[in-house]
Amino acid sequence: MMNEVRVGLLGLGTIGLGAARILIEQNSLISKRLGKNVRLVAACDRSLDRTFDLDFSDVRLSDQASDITTADDIDLVIELIGGYEPARTFVTQAIEHGKHIVTANKALIAKHGDELFALAEKHGVSIGFEAAVGGGIPCLKTLREGLAANHITAIYGILNGTCNYILTRMENEGLDFSEVLNDAQSLGYAEADPTFDIEGIDTAHKLSIISAMAFGSTIHFDEVFTEGISKISADDILAAKDLGYRIKLLGIAKPHGDQVEMRVHPTLVPLNAQIAQVSDSYNAVQISGDFVEHTISFGRGAGERPTASAVIADVMDIARVFPDGSNHLAPPMGFISSARTRLATMPMNEVNCEYYLRFMVKDEPGVIAAITTILADQGISLEAVIQKERHKRQLVPVTLLTHETNEGNLQQAIARITQHPHIDANVLILRKERFDA
Amino acid sequence: MMNEVRVGLLGLGTIGLGAARILIEQNSLISKRLGKNVRLVAACDRSLDRTFDLDFSDVRLSDQASDITTADDIDLVIELIGGYEPARTFVTQAIEHGKHIVTANKALIAKHGDELFALAEKHGVSIGFEAAVGGGIPCLKTLREGLAANHITAIYGILNGTCNYILTRMENEGLDFSEVLNDAQSLGYAEADPTFDIEGIDTAHKLSIISAMAFGSTIHFDEVFTEGISKISADDILAAKDLGYRIKLLGIAKPHGDQVEMRVHPTLVPLNAQIAQVSDSYNAVQISGDFVEHTISFGRGAGERPTASAVIADVMDIARVFPDGSNHLAPPMGFISSARTRLATMPMNEVNCEYYLRFMVKDEPGVIAAITTILADQGISLEAVIQKERHKRQLVPVTLLTHETNEGNLQQAIARITQHPHIDANVLILRKERFDA
Repeated sequence: MMNEVRVGLLGLGTIGLGAARILIEQNSLISKRLGKNVRLVAACDRSLDRTFDLDFSDVRLSDQASDITTADDIDLVIELIGGYEPARTFVTQAIEHGKHIVTANKALIAKHGDELFALAEKHGVSIGFEAAVGGGIPCLKTLREGLAANHITAIYGILNGTCNYILTRMENEGLDFSEVLNDAQSLGYAEADPTFDIEGIDTAHKLSIISAMAFGSTIHFDEVFTEGISKISADDILAAKDLGYRIKLLGIAKPHGDQVEMRVHPTLVPLNAQIAQVSDSYNAVQISGDFVEHTISFGRGAGERPTASAVIADVMDIARVFPDGSNHLAPPMGFISSARTRLATMPMNEVNCEYYLRFMVKDEPGVIAAITTILADQGISLEAVIQKERHKRQLVPVTLLTHETNEGNLQQAIARITQHPHIDANVLILRKERFDA
Repeated sequence: MMNEVRVGLLGLGTIGLGAARILIEQNSLISKRLGKNVRLVAACDRSLDRTFDLDFSDVRLSDQASDITTADDIDLVIELIGGYEPARTFVTQAIEHGKHIVTANKALIAKHGDELFALAEKHGVSIGFEAAVGGGIPCLKTLREGLAANHITAIYGILNGTCNYILTRMENEGLDFSEVLNDAQSLGYAEADPTFDIEGIDTAHKLSIISAMAFGSTIHFDEVFTEGISKISADDILAAKDLGYRIKLLGIAKPHGDQVEMRVHPTLVPLNAQIAQVSDSYNAVQISGDFVEHTISFGRGAGERPTASAVIADVMDIARVFPDGSNHLAPPMGFISSARTRLATMPMNEVNCEYYLRFMVKDEPGVIAAITTILADQGISLEAVIQKERHKRQLVPVTLLTHETNEGNLQQAIARITQHPHIDANVLILRKERFDA
C-alpha cells in the first residue's frame, strides 16, 4: 500500500520505547503532517519477558533481529540497540533486504557510517541518523539543509549531557569531579561505566560525524584529538571563573584548506558567550557559515522522549518520499557521494590555541620567572599569571593564560618547564576559545 | 535539462543581491550538495541604473517583473521585493506560469499565504519562505520537519532584530527609547519609518506564520494581540532588572484545545532564562513540544547575507526534488492542506498572564492601599509592590508584580484603580513569562 510505511524496531530500551510510543500515540498527528500512515509492524528485543506500558497488541514482537531485518512486510528499520556490534550486522542485513534505516547510534555512524552509506546508496535506501548528534535537537538537518548555502567555517558543540551536567554541578556547588560523578551515577545521569562520556569519546563520535557533514569529508573518528573532563578540579573551575571563563567540554571542528581541525577537550569559554549559558544536561551546537554568520541550536541532548522525537522526524522524512526513492532526500552527509573527499585531519601539534596552564610548584623565588622566561623564549606571550596561594611545604598552583600559539610549540615549552626541579611534571593544560561574535 | 534549475530573481535590494551573490559565488558548493546545477538566469529591479559588485554578465537583467514571472526558461522565482503589493501580484503570476516560489516576505505570507499555498498546490509548485521568519535561522524547517513528531506546546520568539537591538542598548546604556531609535535610524539598523518594527507588527507577521505552522491552523495575522516597545522607558528596564527580569519583545503562541493564544508584547523574562541572553540584533525562537521538551534556535534575524542563506536553502530544497514535483517536500505549513483547520484565536481577555504594572501616583497616604485593595477585590494576588521615589509635587511611579490572572480581570481592576483621584489614567502594563525549564 503506497500510502503506508511499515516500520520495524530493533531494541526496546529507553529510546526504543520512546520511538514506539510516538509511532503509536502520535499516529494521527504523523498522518496529518505526511498525508500517509506510518505503522509500527514489528519490534525486537532480547528480553521480552517484561510488561510494557504501551499497547503492542498490533505489533509483532520477537527476540530475533532477522525477524525484522529480513521481513517482507517492513519498509523501514529503526535501529536503537547502540554500539558497534551487533548493530552493524543487523543494519547491513536490513539494507541488503532493501529497508530504509533510521538510527540514533553515533558509535555506529562514526565508525562504520561511510561503509553503510555506500551500501545504502547501492540498494537505493536512505539512512537517517539525526538522533545520533544532539539528541532531540535537529542540528544535523539544520546543518545539512538549513545552512546548505554556506561554506561552514566553524562548529562548536556541547554534545554530551553527562559531562555538561557534571561541570555545571561542580561549578554551582564547588564539588570535585569524582563526587559529582558518583552522584550522577546513582541518579542515572551517568552510566555504570562512564568512560565513553567523561573521556570525551561520545563527543568525539558526534564531532566526527558533524565535521564530516560540514566540510564534505569522509568520517574519521579515530583521528579526533580527545581529552575528557576527569582531570578538572573545582579549583580550576573557580580559577577560570575569576578570569571570566567557564569550562565546558566542547567538540570543535574548523576547516583549513584541505585539512580539518577536530578536537574534543575541556575548553574555557567567555562567561558572556551564548554557549557558556548552556547548563545541566542540555546540549548546544554552534554552526558558523560564510553567509549565515553563526547560529546555535539548543535543547535536550539525550533522554527517551527528546531522542525519540529526532528518530521519528527521520522516519517521517523518509516516509515523505516513500516509495519513490531516497534520491529526493538530502544526501545523508550533506554532499552527493561523488563530491565527498578524504580531508586530512590537521595534526594537533599544528593547531593554534590559547591556553590555560596550571603548574604545581614549590613556593620558591624564581619559579615564576623560570616559567615565564621559557614561555617567552618559545615566543608565547601571556595574558595573565596568577599565584594566589602561598605554602612553604606543599606544592601550590601557578595559573597562566597565554595568547595564541600552536600546540607543538606549547608542548615543547611545557617539556622544558617541567624539567625545573621546583615544578611538578603534572601540568593541567586547558584550551580557550574566544567566540568573537 | 533535468539536472539544472533555472532561477529568476525579483528585487535587487539588499537581500536580493545577497541571494544573487550566493547563486553566483557558491555555485560549485551548491552543485556538490545537490548533484544538480542551480543557475541564476534573470533578475529584475526597478532601478538598474547603477553598478553592482557582482558579475551579472550571464544574467538577463530587466525592469519588468513579467520578464521573470512568465518566462519559459525559468523554473523558480525568488521574490525579494517585500510588502503586500506588487509582490502578491507577481507571485500569483509566477505560480500561474508553473514556477516554484521562494520568498522572504513575511507580510505577504502572513496576509496572503493561505491563498498562495492553495494556488501553488493547484499548479503543482512549491513555496519556500524560511527567510520570512527568523532571517538566517532555519527555524521553520526545524519546526516543520525537525520537530514533526511533536504536538507543539508553546512558541516564544524574539523575532525582530531592531526591537531587540533597541532594548539591549536601552538596558546597557540606560538610554531612553527615542534616543536609541534615533541612533539606530542613523546607523541603518532601523527604517526611516520604523512603525512595523517598533509597534510589533513585523513580529506579529512572523508569529502568525509560525503559530499556524505549529498548530495546523490557517494564518490569522490580524487576530494577533500586538503591542510594541515605544512605551518602555529606561526606568522600566531598570525596575524589571531589580526584580530579576529583562524586557524583551516576544511573540508568544500556545494552543488551548481548539483555540490558539497569539500575542506580541514587551515581556518580562527571568534574567537566567536562555532567551534573556539573546542580545543586540540577534533573533531566537524557542519551540516546545510534547516529546522534545524545549529547543531554541538562535542566530541573525536579518541582514543581506544571513537572510540570503535562508532564501537559497529553500531554493536548494525545491531543486532537490525538481522536476518530479513538490509532493516530496514537506507541505509548506507542516500539515497536508486537508488537515489544516481554522483554529479560533483566543480572545485576549481570556488569556492568563502574570503582570508588571507601573502606576504614576501622587505621593499621598492611602494610594498604595487603594491599588492593592482593588486588586485583592478582583482576586489578583501580588508578588511585589515597589515605590522607591518620593516627591510631594510630581507623580511618582508605583510598580507591582502580580501572580497569574486573566487579562479581562486585570483590565477591570485597572479601570477601577485609575478612577482614584491620585492615580494617573496612564498605566504601563507589561506581561511576564516564567520559562520554567
